[in-house]
Amino acid sequence: MAFGWIDEQAEQRRRAGLVRTLRPRPADSPLLDLASNDYLGLAHHPEVVEGAADAARTWGGGSTGSRLVTGTTELHAQLERELAEFCGFEAALVFSSGYAANLAAVTTLAPHGSLVVSDAGNHASLIDGCRLARGATQVVGHADPDGVRKALRTHDGQAVVVSDSVFSVDGDAAPVGALAQACREFGAGLLLDDAHGLGVLGDGGRGAPYAAGLAGSEDVVVTVTLSKSLGSQGGAVLGPARVIDHLVNAARTFIFDTGLAPAAAGAALAALTLLRREPERAARARAVASELHTRLTAAGLEAVRPDAAVVSVRAPSPEAAVQWAADCRTAGLAVGCFRPPSVPDGISRLRLTARADLSGAEIERAVRVIGETRP
Amino acid sequence: MAFGWIDEQAEQRRRAGLVRTLRPRPADSPLLDLASNDYLGLAHHPEVVEGAADAARTWGGGSTGSRLVTGTTELHAQLERELAEFCGFEAALVFSSGYAANLAAVTTLAPHGSLVVSDAGNHASLIDGCRLARGATQVVGHADPDGVRKALRTHDGQAVVVSDSVFSVDGDAAPVGALAQACREFGAGLLLDDAHGLGVLGDGGRGAPYAAGLAGSEDVVVTVTLSKSLGSQGGAVLGPARVIDHLVNAARTFIFDTGLAPAAAGAALAALTLLRREPERAARARAVASELHTRLTAAGLEAVRPDAAVVSVRAPSPEAAVQWAADCRTAGLAVGCFRPPSVPDGISRLRLTARADLSGAEIERAVRVIGETRP
Repeated sequence: MAFGWIDEQAEQRRRAGLVRTLRPRPADSPLLDLASNDYLGLAHHPEVVEGAADAARTWGGGSTGSRLVTGTTELHAQLERELAEFCGFEAALVFSSGYAANLAAVTTLAPHGSLVVSDAGNHASLIDGCRLARGATQVVGHADPDGVRKALRTHDGQAVVVSDSVFSVDGDAAPVGALAQACREFGAGLLLDDAHGLGVLGDGGRGAPYAAGLAGSEDVVVTVTLSKSLGSQGGAVLGPARVIDHLVNAARTFIFDTGLAPAAAGAALAALTLLRREPERAARARAVASELHTRLTAAGLEAVRPDAAVVSVRAPSPEAAVQWAADCRTAGLAVGCFRPPSVPDGISRLRLTARADLSGAEIERAVRVIGETRP
Repeated sequence: MAFGWIDEQAEQRRRAGLVRTLRPRPADSPLLDLASNDYLGLAHHPEVVEGAADAARTWGGGSTGSRLVTGTTELHAQLERELAEFCGFEAALVFSSGYAANLAAVTTLAPHGSLVVSDAGNHASLIDGCRLARGATQVVGHADPDGVRKALRTHDGQAVVVSDSVFSVDGDAAPVGALAQACREFGAGLLLDDAHGLGVLGDGGRGAPYAAGLAGSEDVVVTVTLSKSLGSQGGAVLGPARVIDHLVNAARTFIFDTGLAPAAAGAALAALTLLRREPERAARARAVASELHTRLTAAGLEAVRPDAAVVSVRAPSPEAAVQWAADCRTAGLAVGCFRPPSVPDGISRLRLTARADLSGAEIERAVRVIGETRP
C-alpha cells in the first residue's frame, strides 16, 4: 500500500507521546487566551472586523489571481504604502502569509554563489527559505554577532545575514544593532523577521528595526506578519524600493501565489490605522509582559525576562510541560506549550502571550492558575 | 553596498524586456475579465461576500495563531468536513494558500530515501515542494505515464508521483487515470494538484480526481485551492485520514503558519454551499470554454482545445504576445499573457479564463477584440 509507511511513523509518535491533534475552538470560547499571537487584542476589534467585512463587500471574497495578473487591487497598494511608511521603509510587498514572505525574501536575496548566515534559533519559514535558496547556508549560534562575523569572514562575495528580531518561543530579542554592525563590516545585507516585534517594539509599535535605528537603511530588509499584532492574515517584506522591485520580478511565492484576500488586507489596514491613533497599545503589551514576568517570578516560577510580548516559563520536563498546559486549560486558561523536539535547545516551557487588552484581574487570574497548577 | 548586485539584475531584465510591474486595479474596473482564475464568477457573489463578512464578525479578523495552538476554529473544521465530503475524500486539511498546501503535501509524502516523480510542466509550488522534500526528485516529460513507469522502475522503495491535474498555462488535463494505473503497478502514491479542476471538472465541479474515479482511493492525495473556483483564499489537502493526520504532525507549512483567516474560510464555505445548490455552474464554465475555443478557431486563431476552463491562444512571438495583451487591455479586455522564460516550452500565448458567468454577448465581445487586435 502506497502510504502504509505513514502508519509506522504514527505509531512511533504515539509511543513517544508526541501526537499533535487539532482542537477546534468555538466562537465564544470560555478560556482566557494567553496562547494566541493576538498581541494587541485587535483580531476582534470592531474596526478590524468591519475593515475585513467592508473590503470583502467592495473587492470580493478573493483577489482572483496572482498579484501580477488580477490579484493586485488598489487596497493592496494602499496597505503596502501605509505599512512601509509606518515601519519607516521605502517600499513594501504583501504576501498571503508571513511564511511566503520569508521564503520570498531569503530565496531572492541569496542567489547562486552567495552566502546566507542563519541564526540557529530562526523560524521554520526562514530555515525553509535557506533550503530553497541557491546560495549556501551557514548556521551560526543563537544571537551571536561574533559567530556571524566569523561566518562572513569565510566568504568572498554577496552575503545576507538572516535572523528573527524577536524569537517566537522564548520571546528574546536578537542583538539587531550588533548584527547590523557586523553586516556593515563585511558589506553584507541584513534580513530581519519582525513577526513578533511589529506592534510591540519601537515607537508606537513600529517594530524592532525601527527601535534600533535600522528602518530605511539601504542594506536592511524586514519581513513582518499581518496575522499577529495586526489581527489579520498575511505577511509583507519591507525594504528599499530596488529590493521590493526585485521581489516582484523574482520571488516565486509572490509570482505563483494568489494575492492576499481583500478581507485580510482590509483588516490589516484597519489595525494599522488603529495603531497609529492609539500608539499606547504597543507600550501596554510590553507592560503586561513585564507584569506577568514580575508576578510569575514572585510566585517562585522560572520565567524569562521578556524583550517583547512573549513570556516563557520553564517546565521541569516535557511530560510536566504537557500536563501543566492541560491543567491550565482545565482551569480555564489557554497557554502555549513547547517541548523537544519542537525546541532545539531541549528546554520545555509554557509560552504566554501578554495581550495589550488583558485586564489587571485577568493577569492576576492567569498567574494564579499557572502557580496553582505548577508541576 | 549590500544589495547593489540587484541593480545589475534589474538592468538585465530591462534590456530583455522582461520587467514585471504591478498594476493595482480599482474596485469598479471597466475591463471585461478573462484573466482571473475566478472560474465560476463567485468572488463577487453576494453569498460568498457575506460568508466572508459574517465569518469575520463571528470569528475575528484573523485566526490568531498556528492551527495547532489557537488557529483552528469550528469554522475551519466545518470547511474541512465539507470539502472532503464534496470531493469524495475521507479527510481534508486547510492551509493559508494552495502554495503552502503543495509544499506540505510533497514534503511530507516524500521522506528521506523516497522518490518523487514530477511532471515537467508542474506548478512552481510543486517544484518548490520537490526542492524542499528529503526524497530524491526525478522530473519526467509532460503528461507521460510511460515516462513515469520508467522512473518508478529505477527506484526500490517508497515513491510518489506528482502532477497538476489541469495545467495552468495551457489548460490541458493530465492523464490522471493512466498515472494512477502506473502508480498502482509500482505501489507508488499519486499526488494531484486539482487547483484548476475543482469547481470545473467532475460531477457538479467535484474535480478531476472525482471525474476519474480516483476520489477516496487510499493511494491518492489531492491538493486544491480555495482561491480559484471558490472565490476566496487558501488551499487544502484531501486524502485518507491517515495522510491528513500525518500532515498535521509533520507539515512545516501547517505547523508553523498562522491558520487561514476566518473570512477566507467563510467565503470558501459559502461558495461550496452555492456549488452544491447550483451544480450547473461547473458545466457552464466548460461550455463557455468550449464556445470560446470554437469561436476563436472559426476566427482563424490557433486556440488549444480546452480540457477545463482555460483557453490558450498561440502568439507568433514573445513581443507579439505582450503587444497583443496590451492591445486587448486598451480595447477593454483583460487577458493573461505567458511567454518565455515563464513558460518552459518556449511558446508564447494569451491565456483566457472561461468564467461561468460570462454572457453570450461578453463572449462575442471578447472574441471580437482578440481577433481585431491579433498580431
